[in-house]
Amino acid sequence: MVETQPWVSPFDAQEGRPNMEGDFLREEVRLANRNSGILLEALRHDVTPTGLHYLLNHFDVPYVPSATDWTLSITGRVRRPLKLSMADIQAQPHKTMRVTLECAGNGRANIGMRRQSMPWMYEAVGTSEWTGTPLRPFLEEAGLESDAIDVSFLGIDRGFDKVFHEYGRSLAPQLALSDDVMLVWGMNGQPLLPQHGFPLRMVVPGWYGMASVKWLDRIEVLDSPYQGHQQVGSYVYKESADDPGVPVTHIRVKSLMVPPGIPDWYTRHRLVAPGATEVFGRAWSGNGVSIKRVEFGVDGAWQDAELDPASDKYAWRGWRAKWHAAEGEHEIACRATDENGDTQPLDERWDRSGFGNNMVHKIRVTVRA
Amino acid sequence: MVETQPWVSPFDAQEGRPNMEGDFLREEVRLANRNSGILLEALRHDVTPTGLHYLLNHFDVPYVPSATDWTLSITGRVRRPLKLSMADIQAQPHKTMRVTLECAGNGRANIGMRRQSMPWMYEAVGTSEWTGTPLRPFLEEAGLESDAIDVSFLGIDRGFDKVFHEYGRSLAPQLALSDDVMLVWGMNGQPLLPQHGFPLRMVVPGWYGMASVKWLDRIEVLDSPYQGHQQVGSYVYKESADDPGVPVTHIRVKSLMVPPGIPDWYTRHRLVAPGATEVFGRAWSGNGVSIKRVEFGVDGAWQDAELDPASDKYAWRGWRAKWHAAEGEHEIACRATDENGDTQPLDERWDRSGFGNNMVHKIRVTVRA
Repeated sequence: MVETQPWVSPFDAQEGRPNMEGDFLREEVRLANRNSGILLEALRHDVTPTGLHYLLNHFDVPYVPSATDWTLSITGRVRRPLKLSMADIQAQPHKTMRVTLECAGNGRANIGMRRQSMPWMYEAVGTSEWTGTPLRPFLEEAGLESDAIDVSFLGIDRGFDKVFHEYGRSLAPQLALSDDVMLVWGMNGQPLLPQHGFPLRMVVPGWYGMASVKWLDRIEVLDSPYQGHQQVGSYVYKESADDPGVPVTHIRVKSLMVPPGIPDWYTRHRLVAPGATEVFGRAWSGNGVSIKRVEFGVDGAWQDAELDPASDKYAWRGWRAKWHAAEGEHEIACRATDENGDTQPLDERWDRSGFGNNMVHKIRVTVRA
Repeated sequence: MVETQPWVSPFDAQEGRPNMEGDFLREEVRLANRNSGILLEALRHDVTPTGLHYLLNHFDVPYVPSATDWTLSITGRVRRPLKLSMADIQAQPHKTMRVTLECAGNGRANIGMRRQSMPWMYEAVGTSEWTGTPLRPFLEEAGLESDAIDVSFLGIDRGFDKVFHEYGRSLAPQLALSDDVMLVWGMNGQPLLPQHGFPLRMVVPGWYGMASVKWLDRIEVLDSPYQGHQQVGSYVYKESADDPGVPVTHIRVKSLMVPPGIPDWYTRHRLVAPGATEVFGRAWSGNGVSIKRVEFGVDGAWQDAELDPASDKYAWRGWRAKWHAAEGEHEIACRATDENGDTQPLDERWDRSGFGNNMVHKIRVTVRA
């Protein structure tokens, strides 16, 4: 069978290309058609309407008609290997958390030298109510051996990305055992949708979405660092191809706006009526760090926005700014700062895979009566 | 206010461009990121998982926090103008219909000279369970005048597409009064999602999706043909810019396959293990015409596929074909024929806006042990 062999993909992607108008490849558009995200106007909703939460699925969405036979195994460097049914998992205390997740590649298509991958502009973020149970008691029941130094999580989705693999990620034991890492079966009060990981997935709040493994099939506790492609070959910040790099982990501070006015269908350019208006948006950061400040900018002049009351620890926060729109062409922008003092950069943050690009959101608008 | 003036958009799209690799514009990718659709592997589901039903929203999705104050007016050439609340509408007998909807622009990005618009490849189709009530009793209560020759339907979504307008479409009175045209408030057993038209939309089964107006605000009965841009300026089959054209109406016969094997992440190229396999897909046609035959092709040699039992009148039908996959490179394809004798063309069907492209679905696969 194909899945047991160490295939190297004959279908390799090109390296970075200059990001110019008219330069998107068919492969990128195909990925854009497969992977969808939020509409900026849907930032109005505290909880992203189901179906507008972003999706970044590397391989095919598995067809799982029923959860009845689903099992999760916990093996490797544990004292008592476990094989859990969905009933076993759902017998634990239920917990619902409102969590903002973002794809590490969000904003990739807005940087000057774009790697061929999913061409996200801003869409890869969403906030959902996730229902599940903490992972910790299961790991404690299995009992990590003293030489356990990594915990890997594997889904059943599989295919090529350079090499054949099942999608997998790992967490250090200390994080895997934290209270907020969850096994999840529900989203916005409904069972998980197939494309969001039915019947079982991880949610690792505060981290970019790659850590929240879907269609979770097995947990393997390791005495050496997990070497899966999505851990060591993909989600790594790198300056250049030969840079050993730094792993992608928590979400960087960011904010987005609901575009004011009305759009042109094709270009999405905005027309705004002159006069008093209010611009609304959301801001968030990673690791549960809260938002301290949001600024709203018009043509490079910044003012403080008003923050809505804080929501859940891992959920975005609303903000609003008054704007007296004067006739003409304007560039509006927003910039968030978190309690750690981290602020969004005005310009792109170079990464060769386009990860972690949290530069400020800018929108060009025409104000006209 | 901007919406009362006859704006002409200063943000016009370019005309058709040759459809080559590397030739997609940023505007097209932006639309691909906004408008999402089905994943081919999700064709397995009789009812498309919520969130994978395609979306083609011309303007911003309106923010409607509650249905409480929503009204639908019926005015114009009627004897008794009506203003209906959601409670009035939902007091009528409920009806749930399983309907396959497809965007008229589906397949646009697969033809040789591509108009700049949403670059659909195959994704713009889905089947949902729509809950609502027939439109007919409301039109009968309002009472069409004898000079009524067109019934227009307007949503609250608005913006530019050449000219400023609210999204609107019309139907001939005979069709508007047919039993199957519905006012809909539910989808897959839940309230409509914002992006699917909450709180109220049309479903016009058997027609391409442009007829199923979302965020339905008012119905105006006219004594002359409705002249809205989406009726006369957009959804029209045309050979060339000066062709008066033919309006886009019902869905053309079509079929799609679940790609066998496993994908390469970036190119989506497929690797299939040699030997016996079964290929599954869906086929559908418009106007309630049922599917008579589906053929499965390998490298140009066709065999009849087996049809699953027919589903609801307006819903797609499953089909499956046995394939003994031999090592090598292959092109597999599927082709449906409906009870009218209409068959999918092997090659593209020229239309300058890329509407109604129902050419056969082809997938290149590598078969290797």
